[in-house]
Amino acid sequence: MNKDTICALATANGIGAIGIIRVSGKDAINIVQKSFKDKELNSAPSHTIHYGYITDGDELIDEVMVSVFLAPKSFTTENCVEISFHGSPFIGKRILEILIRNGCRMAKAGEFTMRAFMNGRIDLSQAESIADLISSENEAARKIALHQLKGGITNEIALLRQDLLNFTSLVELELDFSEEDVEFADRSALKQLLKTIKSKLNNLINSFQYGNAVRNGIDTAIIGKPNAGKSTLLNALLKEERAIVSDIAGTTRDTIEEVLHIKGNAFRFIDTAGIRETTDKIEEIGVKKAKEKIASAKILLYLYNEKEDKKEEVVRFIKTFYRPDLKIILIHNKIDSVSESERESFDKALKTELYPDFCSEFLCMSAKEALGIDVLTNALSDYVDSIKTAEHNTIITNQRHYEALLKSLDAAQKVEEAILQGIHTELLAYELRAALEALGEISGEFTNDELLGHIFSNFCIGK
Amino acid sequence: MNKDTICALATANGIGAIGIIRVSGKDAINIVQKSFKDKELNSAPSHTIHYGYITDGDELIDEVMVSVFLAPKSFTTENCVEISFHGSPFIGKRILEILIRNGCRMAKAGEFTMRAFMNGRIDLSQAESIADLISSENEAARKIALHQLKGGITNEIALLRQDLLNFTSLVELELDFSEEDVEFADRSALKQLLKTIKSKLNNLINSFQYGNAVRNGIDTAIIGKPNAGKSTLLNALLKEERAIVSDIAGTTRDTIEEVLHIKGNAFRFIDTAGIRETTDKIEEIGVKKAKEKIASAKILLYLYNEKEDKKEEVVRFIKTFYRPDLKIILIHNKIDSVSESERESFDKALKTELYPDFCSEFLCMSAKEALGIDVLTNALSDYVDSIKTAEHNTIITNQRHYEALLKSLDAAQKVEEAILQGIHTELLAYELRAALEALGEISGEFTNDELLGHIFSNFCIGK
Repeated sequence: MNKDTICALATANGIGAIGIIRVSGKDAINIVQKSFKDKELNSAPSHTIHYGYITDGDELIDEVMVSVFLAPKSFTTENCVEISFHGSPFIGKRILEILIRNGCRMAKAGEFTMRAFMNGRIDLSQAESIADLISSENEAARKIALHQLKGGITNEIALLRQDLLNFTSLVELELDFSEEDVEFADRSALKQLLKTIKSKLNNLINSFQYGNAVRNGIDTAIIGKPNAGKSTLLNALLKEERAIVSDIAGTTRDTIEEVLHIKGNAFRFIDTAGIRETTDKIEEIGVKKAKEKIASAKILLYLYNEKEDKKEEVVRFIKTFYRPDLKIILIHNKIDSVSESERESFDKALKTELYPDFCSEFLCMSAKEALGIDVLTNALSDYVDSIKTAEHNTIITNQRHYEALLKSLDAAQKVEEAILQGIHTELLAYELRAALEALGEISGEFTNDELLGHIFSNFCIGK
Repeated sequence: MNKDTICALATANGIGAIGIIRVSGKDAINIVQKSFKDKELNSAPSHTIHYGYITDGDELIDEVMVSVFLAPKSFTTENCVEISFHGSPFIGKRILEILIRNGCRMAKAGEFTMRAFMNGRIDLSQAESIADLISSENEAARKIALHQLKGGITNEIALLRQDLLNFTSLVELELDFSEEDVEFADRSALKQLLKTIKSKLNNLINSFQYGNAVRNGIDTAIIGKPNAGKSTLLNALLKEERAIVSDIAGTTRDTIEEVLHIKGNAFRFIDTAGIRETTDKIEEIGVKKAKEKIASAKILLYLYNEKEDKKEEVVRFIKTFYRPDLKIILIHNKIDSVSESERESFDKALKTELYPDFCSEFLCMSAKEALGIDVLTNALSDYVDSIKTAEHNTIITNQRHYEALLKSLDAAQKVEEAILQGIHTELLAYELRAALEALGEISGEFTNDELLGHIFSNFCIGK
């Protein structure tokens, strides 16, 4: 374990009113004290704040507030100091230079959190959840990360793992008495436990589809002729839901994507404008473009109206793009400018062809008049709910967890088979250990430096 | 004065390990308490930090640290709370929403600092220095801003103003006894004071040239044929001084400018590559380009060597671009590849033509071998020192201060003239009041809402 003292800028890069430099390690207080003469920090109680100047020799560098956190009641469980300075990146650099000259080392990405993990304050999945919290861009992602920080996934697995560990001990005990042919571990109870474990693992694995969508936004393709009302619909959604249009580079106009947050879920709307301008070319350029965009989508919103669209065209398109895992919502737009009977007869023909095999959701709307928007937002959030794992709250969002869970499931299956085949106790014990190890990977009980290095290198500096 | 409670993000926009939300006002603690149930904040001592969760009803929003600062020992002198959260901009928004729902108002730009000023903790020039500190990008700018935050300019002026105020009172007293024709205020002492005031004001006004250069970097044009060694020189400076190449947009490659910090001063090097590729076209395109770039420069570095340059060419160029306020440094580069006698004879001819009227600084260098770099950096920093006001440390960097000082100087001159002309005491008192008001503008003793609004609107939110 590292015993040196590390420092880094903890706030976002750029100019702000306040910048924070974080220092952690055995000598954190002594090192900061060398450039902070206004107060005796060594006698300061934990969780107190002190006003003064950071100095470099006789020169004043900045007026600051220094917060002291004494081990073990700190983020890393080590002595920690936070220096709050006037948020100029230049001043931040100056202070870091001074700290380094006085004995600190510049922290690597994620090193503060890694120390919290190494020092046993949090487990690996909690450490990962901190990075997820920091990068959370919507309500659902924030909730899942916070749940995980509070031990969500670890708790789910820890209990099962404990039970499995008990069985493993009993099986290993049998090995010690192998000549007496005793059976301490009740095989049918073990089988029952494995069934429970597999079911739990499957639930978690299935939650990854949702978890992934939550993290990145659910790809939603909007299809419709150039004048079908796609922008009007986006604007109406924006207004209705007081949704936040994310301002992250690459998700705006230039890539014709908009991320809207509806009832706390992120939807990544992909505008497929112009695809169907010439009906006779559908099979060529249009379909090719649409295919690419719809291929990655989870939801397809198809906007049409009885005046500008032809039934056969709509039917053909939907049948072409139908996938069992694609949620298709047909939206009859511009209903403010047409009689109900006309609309109904049009839609009836569509339903005859498409319902329920290709599409089960037919909505009516006037995006312009904001009529029917709430029905759409309900349909969207209902869909998200439907892909949530129903049974519990823990959602997997992390690729590493997903892979460890698949590995665990595989290991559990091998144990199950080993029991069914009445395999030798020694081999059973081996499979059990493998399953324990796989389950332990998520919380970091079984891990290696390379993996740790990889996980924490994706953190930002200062965390 | 506003009695409501304000909140804002205080750290830079973007993703960081930590984000800080600042809350200030009478109800700061009560409002934060509504969404922070883990500790009783009302009984918390000032300058203490508390761990817990921000909640929205029953829902946990984020794990945070809450710092409590009790009035009057806070930045604004009001009750202040700082919430340190996992630095996701999304989580920041969520917390601000909750605070606003619980009774806060979103702070306007600079409103925290404005309150510190309105509540009398700092004067106006100190308030301005906080914005300067936050935006300081080099050592000199940081120093000046910090000096000003510690009361630099205010102290300089406050003493003079106090003396002038005493005289004004005496002069006004004379008005009460106007029928008795007494003279309480010693006119010759007043004249002496005005002389001191004018000299001080002139010093401060003159420091603005340096102050401005410090703030934005001193424009330094590098002239030389394409292969004269300009990049090599920049790299050598970089290495020698461990200078920081600023990474601010617009100062890098694409605008062929580099900001180097040499001995704490910023120099904005403007590479004028290619200007002199065809000597016969100098008078046309070349000179036009060079003129534009040299026109705004304070320093001109001219790189040449005896092999690739012609004496007449160098002389003609320098004579063309000579300005009394342009510091010209002639640099004989590539001295590692030539005999001293050749070099000397070349330079002797140049000196005969140019020294001392057009250029007083002739350096020798091998940028490639890093020979003579220190001589150049000394010359550059000596030049900066020479334009500093010699007498004192206070440097004006602020356009508003500059204008207020000019106004004060003008007012002081009017008082002086009034005394010389033996003007009526009543008019003298009027001029004295005008001078006092002008001097008071810098520290904000005489000010108006419009001016204040203008000053603080240039701050960032959260400060």
